[in-house]
Amino acid sequence: MKIKLTVEYDGTEYCGWQIQPNGITVQERLNQAVKAITGEDVTVTGSGRTDSGVHAQGQVAHFETASKIPAERFAPALNSALPSDVRVIKSEEVAGDFHARFCAKKKTYCYKMYLSETIRPLLDRYCAHLPYPVDLVSMKECAKLFVGTHDFSAFMASGSEVKDTVRTVYLSEVSCDSDVISFTVCGNGFLYNMVRIMAGTLVAVGMGNLTLSDVASAVEGGERSKVGKTMPARGLTLLSVDYD
Amino acid sequence: MKIKLTVEYDGTEYCGWQIQPNGITVQERLNQAVKAITGEDVTVTGSGRTDSGVHAQGQVAHFETASKIPAERFAPALNSALPSDVRVIKSEEVAGDFHARFCAKKKTYCYKMYLSETIRPLLDRYCAHLPYPVDLVSMKECAKLFVGTHDFSAFMASGSEVKDTVRTVYLSEVSCDSDVISFTVCGNGFLYNMVRIMAGTLVAVGMGNLTLSDVASAVEGGERSKVGKTMPARGLTLLSVDYD
Repeated sequence: MKIKLTVEYDGTEYCGWQIQPNGITVQERLNQAVKAITGEDVTVTGSGRTDSGVHAQGQVAHFETASKIPAERFAPALNSALPSDVRVIKSEEVAGDFHARFCAKKKTYCYKMYLSETIRPLLDRYCAHLPYPVDLVSMKECAKLFVGTHDFSAFMASGSEVKDTVRTVYLSEVSCDSDVISFTVCGNGFLYNMVRIMAGTLVAVGMGNLTLSDVASAVEGGERSKVGKTMPARGLTLLSVDYD
Repeated sequence: MKIKLTVEYDGTEYCGWQIQPNGITVQERLNQAVKAITGEDVTVTGSGRTDSGVHAQGQVAHFETASKIPAERFAPALNSALPSDVRVIKSEEVAGDFHARFCAKKKTYCYKMYLSETIRPLLDRYCAHLPYPVDLVSMKECAKLFVGTHDFSAFMASGSEVKDTVRTVYLSEVSCDSDVISFTVCGNGFLYNMVRIMAGTLVAVGMGNLTLSDVASAVEGGERSKVGKTMPARGLTLLSVDYD
């Protein structure tokens, strides 16, 4: 039986999703929880990695099991074996050809930032801190430039070995509630650090350090000098992963 | 010179506001920060205690100093000596007769709860978890019953030695955004655990375990059996303290 999991986690204490030699990861915790419940050694496969410190509201993962536990009972059972900062929100049986990564059609992320001279302890865990004023109107305009099918190579962290850097962004928008700016972006896939570099580009435009035409040229031509810095991990949350 | 501080803190890691022998408190951290900056041994006096695990967005405190540091520079100076979960949002000089506790005219609190079968890691730090459905309409009606001048003795934790249990509530309302219910209450003062017991009473009404007339009689007559349980600390945030 193949089980699909929808997982929420506070990434603050984790070295990201994917198992690695140094540091605890969310995937490792899920593998351990499945082992504790079923006795099986499984690999819980996610829709993609999230980096160290990145959060997820709707990460999707799958694993195979020979267990007789009904699919929908895996959520409470696994939760009893997980730390409280990782929770399986839903578990369901899926067809044998389902794959959390290869079948994913869309991912939606939200990047949050708060405007304040001072660190705000009640916002700082899930938002990046912007200690300077930014122009929201130009940030909203900038977000629109990301929509469409583009070569986003300028928005990829150096060191990534991905060859095909063309991605399609379906939705990209900036909103503001009190002092918190939210950048929501949905696409068919994202390059390494792409959302955090997009967020940094929005900030650079909001501060007047980049122009909208700089960004338009970066989206088309891939000029690395025309994008902003990679924003901190803690502002980023994977909201959802969509499948057919 | 007397300095008024507006302080935000994430109370998760603290044994409340007030200095105590066992465990670290916010007041202790502020006293230490003033000592680090001015060399003076001072007591930073708050508008009132917050309990272990309770958060504040706008706690107010004061202290006296002989330092020549301009009043408004205390905020950044103290922040350089504070842990990142406590921040002075504003520092200003006040008249010698200002007292953070005795001059406070109004306090506003927010109690947040989220509705979900499962713990939600991204909500759980600042909200209580309601794993059962509640009726929002009756909760909104219940909140209205708290408005006015009443003997709130039924809403005071046992063991408190306060004699005058009459308080005036100016605003009391329940709102809901996605799965998060917020109870906002403003009054001239609150008894020990009063807001958390009010929140528990709203939940009991929302679950059908108490009726609106039960609560109406508790507000008037002080019947302890007609109020709900004390809700967990982490859902409570002191939003602001108002002075003349």
